[in-house]
Amino acid sequence: MNLQRYLEKRSQLVDRALTRVLPKRTSLPTKLDDAMRYSLFSGGKRIRPILALASGEAVGAPVAHIMPFACALEMIHSYSLVHDDLPAMDDDDLRRGQPTNHIVFGEAMAILAGDGLLTEAFRVMAEGALRLGKNPAAALRAVQEIAIGAGAMGMVGGQVADLEAEQKKPTRTLVDYIHTRKTAALLRASVRAGALVGGASPRQFARLDEYGAAIGLAFQVADDILDVEGETAKTGKRAGRDAELQKVTYPAAVGMKKAKARARELLHEALAALQSFPVAADPLREIAKFVVERAVPRAT
Amino acid sequence: MNLQRYLEKRSQLVDRALTRVLPKRTSLPTKLDDAMRYSLFSGGKRIRPILALASGEAVGAPVAHIMPFACALEMIHSYSLVHDDLPAMDDDDLRRGQPTNHIVFGEAMAILAGDGLLTEAFRVMAEGALRLGKNPAAALRAVQEIAIGAGAMGMVGGQVADLEAEQKKPTRTLVDYIHTRKTAALLRASVRAGALVGGASPRQFARLDEYGAAIGLAFQVADDILDVEGETAKTGKRAGRDAELQKVTYPAAVGMKKAKARARELLHEALAALQSFPVAADPLREIAKFVVERAVPRAT
Repeated sequence: MNLQRYLEKRSQLVDRALTRVLPKRTSLPTKLDDAMRYSLFSGGKRIRPILALASGEAVGAPVAHIMPFACALEMIHSYSLVHDDLPAMDDDDLRRGQPTNHIVFGEAMAILAGDGLLTEAFRVMAEGALRLGKNPAAALRAVQEIAIGAGAMGMVGGQVADLEAEQKKPTRTLVDYIHTRKTAALLRASVRAGALVGGASPRQFARLDEYGAAIGLAFQVADDILDVEGETAKTGKRAGRDAELQKVTYPAAVGMKKAKARARELLHEALAALQSFPVAADPLREIAKFVVERAVPRAT
Repeated sequence: MNLQRYLEKRSQLVDRALTRVLPKRTSLPTKLDDAMRYSLFSGGKRIRPILALASGEAVGAPVAHIMPFACALEMIHSYSLVHDDLPAMDDDDLRRGQPTNHIVFGEAMAILAGDGLLTEAFRVMAEGALRLGKNPAAALRAVQEIAIGAGAMGMVGGQVADLEAEQKKPTRTLVDYIHTRKTAALLRASVRAGALVGGASPRQFARLDEYGAAIGLAFQVADDILDVEGETAKTGKRAGRDAELQKVTYPAAVGMKKAKARARELLHEALAALQSFPVAADPLREIAKFVVERAVPRAT
């Protein structure tokens, strides 16, 4: 399969669905509507929604059943970026090459736009599941998984640990603690949600979840590597930003060589988890390779 | 019935349930756990959860079925206060007579504690509904209603309008726009959620919803009146704070006399909506009277 083509098509599908679930609304204060849409439609890679869709695809589910959850995952990801960039947090003025939300709309509006995106993500899940009327219990389980992945035990907890870790000695234990929560938890929840709504058997769910855990962590390890070695033009953020903020990263904790080995090991784990799956899981396989190999090319 | 006793008992029940759904967790960064619990257990009146429970009670539902949603409503209310108090927003240092969250834990932690409370509210709903295993579709509808009431079309939108309105001329239209969103929407969603999960018929739901709309707005009108006439010791916030922040309030828009008349009119509407309900709706009736009469005593 041609992964780039697949990602492009899927990301277009997700964008169209996002436009449907979060249209321009005159019933909202204009500035709030603008601020929410500014960050949501700012050219993200839509990796979380695509993972959820691909996970459902692996167990034979139609895209339409997973889509509300896919949209919600992107809305949650988008809110987290808006809040992470705030002056009280990472104080970033550039995101994907564009001024961050609070630079354009002010701090109060950025906080509220984030709150709005997070809250409406749950509206979108509930609404979508009710409209389809398929398996409301599975939908509730997906809501639960996404809330856990995004909440205090997941992404929010990871962001707290990340902020607290600045200027701490970067150890392997600390970086694992942060990465599994801050980034991996929501990626893993994306895979879980797709599997649950897609009707995975308990056995299929367990294997897909292994895949999600591995790819979730691999994603952040690769990101750490790219922050050191990548180019601003390619990554959309200034190279060396992590070091500047004294962030705890994999290369800082274990060295670049071991970080790259870990990324490849995680890729291996992710692929092994999918061994019993048919070609329907090929997108998941190709995504895993892509995530790791954009930072650690096969030749390395 | 003795309303004070009822409110006390219900608020104790809610507190116990909140302790169960949000226990002290060593799996979280300690400071995040502390910050979330600091604001959640700071002596709120638990009016939203109590409304949800009373709405369920009015249609004969057991408290246990509504409780996860009741807890979630209080968590959402609590997050909204934490974010509203932030320096970028209302910049308040006192809430219910205690230092606000960001004063105690810092701005970054207050933002994240709010995000955590909001996200976990949805976990609590999904988890509770799955544990009870009753009617997952009704649970999804309640999730949807609560997300709408709390989101950009409801509370978040109202907060934006409220911030934008500072220093604007307070008109009746503007104050209605703000109040129906900022405060009434989540109160109304509380009543709706209780009715849905409680198994209300469409006819019962429509009447309870009328009640919720009236009482939701009455609550904020009463609050506006108390901000002018109340004492700090009784209301837990400094009297005259709204005027200081140049907030758009009912008394400012239409004058104190008309504001009081409007509050009594809304009480009348709320009670009329419940006319066909049996004594099981007495708590809803008494709550409505209490909400209005603490600001506008019957003699007025």
